Amino acid sequence: MILGRAVIAGQDKYVKINDDKVEILNGDIFGEINSSGKLLPLSEVKLLPPVLPSKIICVGLNYRDHIDEFKHQLPEEPVIFLKPPTAVIGPLDVIILPQESRRVDYEGELAVVIKKEGRNLKEEEARDFILGYTCANDVTARDLQRKDGQWTRGKSFDTFCPLGPWIVTDIEPDHLEIETYLNGELRQKSNTSKMLFHPYFLVSFISKVMTLKPGDVILTGTPSGVGKLAEGDTVEVKISAIGSLRNFVKV
Amino acid sequence: MILGRAVIAGQDKYVKINDDKVEILNGDIFGEINSSGKLLPLSEVKLLPPVLPSKIICVGLNYRDHIDEFKHQLPEEPVIFLKPPTAVIGPLDVIILPQESRRVDYEGELAVVIKKEGRNLKEEEARDFILGYTCANDVTARDLQRKDGQWTRGKSFDTFCPLGPWIVTDIEPDHLEIETYLNGELRQKSNTSKMLFHPYFLVSFISKVMTLKPGDVILTGTPSGVGKLAEGDTVEVKISAIGSLRNFVKV
Repeated sequence: MILGRAVIAGQDKYVKINDDKVEILNGDIFGEINSSGKLLPLSEVKLLPPVLPSKIICVGLNYRDHIDEFKHQLPEEPVIFLKPPTAVIGPLDVIILPQESRRVDYEGELAVVIKKEGRNLKEEEARDFILGYTCANDVTARDLQRKDGQWTRGKSFDTFCPLGPWIVTDIEPDHLEIETYLNGELRQKSNTSKMLFHPYFLVSFISKVMTLKPGDVILTGTPSGVGKLAEGDTVEVKISAIGSLRNFVKV
Repeated sequence: MILGRAVIAGQDKYVKINDDKVEILNGDIFGEINSSGKLLPLSEVKLLPPVLPSKIICVGLNYRDHIDEFKHQLPEEPVIFLKPPTAVIGPLDVIILPQESRRVDYEGELAVVIKKEGRNLKEEEARDFILGYTCANDVTARDLQRKDGQWTRGKSFDTFCPLGPWIVTDIEPDHLEIETYLNGELRQKSNTSKMLFHPYFLVSFISKVMTLKPGDVILTGTPSGVGKLAEGDTVEVKISAIGSLRNFVKV
């Protein structure tokens, strides 16, 4: 099932996407939903971020090649950080380059969307607490990340968390092709099978720290090939079985 | 004015505190409020965290003595990090020591509560965007903070952000006595006049990164004297003109 959010006649609604049609839903995808029976062509609908998370938990270094790229040691445990909900934008929205930074990078990532409240979950239980998966871009002001030591500021600017285009349920996260394109040129190419820490492990690990809530999002780390964004760029994170999250870059 | 939240006949309500009386309010302190006319004795009311923030932005090193304590260099700019909303507890609630840590510390802090949405604020504008102030405890798993390098995990456990007992409006944050007591013994003692970065500067600085929303909370850093919590402890953060935030510690 493919679930998203869209503006329908001025209202934010959950929708189900069936090929090139958008079916408008009543209710909440974390509670009860039912079809309104109304269908619209996908091409005529403005998609929103598929979820509005109460928190976004990110994993710092989770692909061996990206760790090599930054000459880090392999971590024993995931290193986590948070992005604020105010950073979220949707597909085709604009990433704004802030004045405070000279170097803003894209980082294409697989994002996990949490289905229901969970705390202290075992890895075997994680699957039941996941609604589905979407694409994410962990946009990062690299210079501020380095200057502060703490990664928060560099990763927290408004527009620095594109999510979308939708949530795909009922897929396994183990062997998905993940690619990032900058102005149509392939820049990141990997497979989620190369993660050090499996998404189920991450859900379990994070749930031992903080209660996960419906709609919370986990960004599972980026592969090698991160690079700089400039005004006028188009950046696209593409994950097999999910789709493509495209965003524009402005100052 | 002293504003809080309390459980009244099973419902979460905003309240106004007048000496030893609690006046029940209708509405939302970030929108329209009016008095229900009902008064209850403060001693009979269970206070909740005075606000449920959509984000909690914390400042790492903001008192010179605490920086010396950890042998850090004076920062040129504030170093910020986030705590998740799920960490919030209220006055007299219990801080749970997690199994994952051998060393959990208290850190008494002045907290700023944001009144209305703001972005790219000047320092001179900050005051208008502040609803008031409350006490906070930036509870920290020191061993995990050190191990990870990133501070997020060590500061994000459920119950690691006591807030309260209430929000005091119409005070200036410049010269407040701040003290932390462990089992009645004074452990931290300073004055907000010793902050490196003034709360108004912090509001401005953070608003240049992320849009501040009504109810968002900024923790302004802790003075020297941080120390370990153990099962059975009572920890109290006391700030002049605000009040006292007391919490219990369990495993």
